[in-house]
Amino acid sequence: MLSYARSTTLAAVEGLTIAELDYLHDAKSNSIGALLAHIASVERSYQVLTFEERLLSPQENELWSTALKLGANGRRSLRGCPLEHYLEELTAVRRVTLETLAARDDAWLERTVSPAPKINAHWAWFHVAEDEINHRGQIRWLRARLGKRDI
Amino acid sequence: MLSYARSTTLAAVEGLTIAELDYLHDAKSNSIGALLAHIASVERSYQVLTFEERLLSPQENELWSTALKLGANGRRSLRGCPLEHYLEELTAVRRVTLETLAARDDAWLERTVSPAPKINAHWAWFHVAEDEINHRGQIRWLRARLGKRDI
Repeated sequence: MLSYARSTTLAAVEGLTIAELDYLHDAKSNSIGALLAHIASVERSYQVLTFEERLLSPQENELWSTALKLGANGRRSLRGCPLEHYLEELTAVRRVTLETLAARDDAWLERTVSPAPKINAHWAWFHVAEDEINHRGQIRWLRARLGKRDI
Repeated sequence: MLSYARSTTLAAVEGLTIAELDYLHDAKSNSIGALLAHIASVERSYQVLTFEERLLSPQENELWSTALKLGANGRRSLRGCPLEHYLEELTAVRRVTLETLAARDDAWLERTVSPAPKINAHWAWFHVAEDEINHRGQIRWLRARLGKRDI
């Protein structure tokens, strides 16, 4: 499910230029580039939560919070990068996810995530896919309107 | 996963008026109401495909194609209904899904869907959730902009 969701995200952004990745549809919009950075940072956070069984460190929080939270800071600083930058980040993060999941078993999946005891690892990784698919829906919507502001 | 995805869709549309459900953000947009009708019709189609193991009949195709395909026809005809209309439709369709899935086992889930031999039932129902989550992302985006066209 993670891999299928990712394949659809990659298809949705194929061939986008820097200007298209940075395009802000309106004053509240996140750019497609910022959404890609968000997808990678959400996955990285859930790696820490479920694989390392801890909350983000203050340093990680500082480093990733713009991509995690998006909004005004994201509009200001998540821009100017080519598609390859986002794709390399997504690929590097995903490699760790797949390698680490491959070393776990189904019993691990059902275990409570100790720093977030309301969820188990299975839900956490479903949620990573779910958040990506949610933003892929927005990416498709935005891509269909690149450079065409509403009248 | 289906139930969790649905709970987030319901939260995303809570309290919307008919005017808000019908709101078209731009000339290419689908309204939130049309997206809810789409979510119900996709689920109904996958019931036919996986539970009844057949393609849609010409009558079903005729009846559901507006909600399945959205676009211009959807903008014209999927409007004027209160939230309760969409919620009742979603609930009625979902009841059939959950009852029928409860009567199946995991081996059934892995079986090829005979009228669509590239997929199995597991993928089909993942895809139903995935399509809903994709549109929920769009619903959230649209809801944040109700009545505020871009300048």
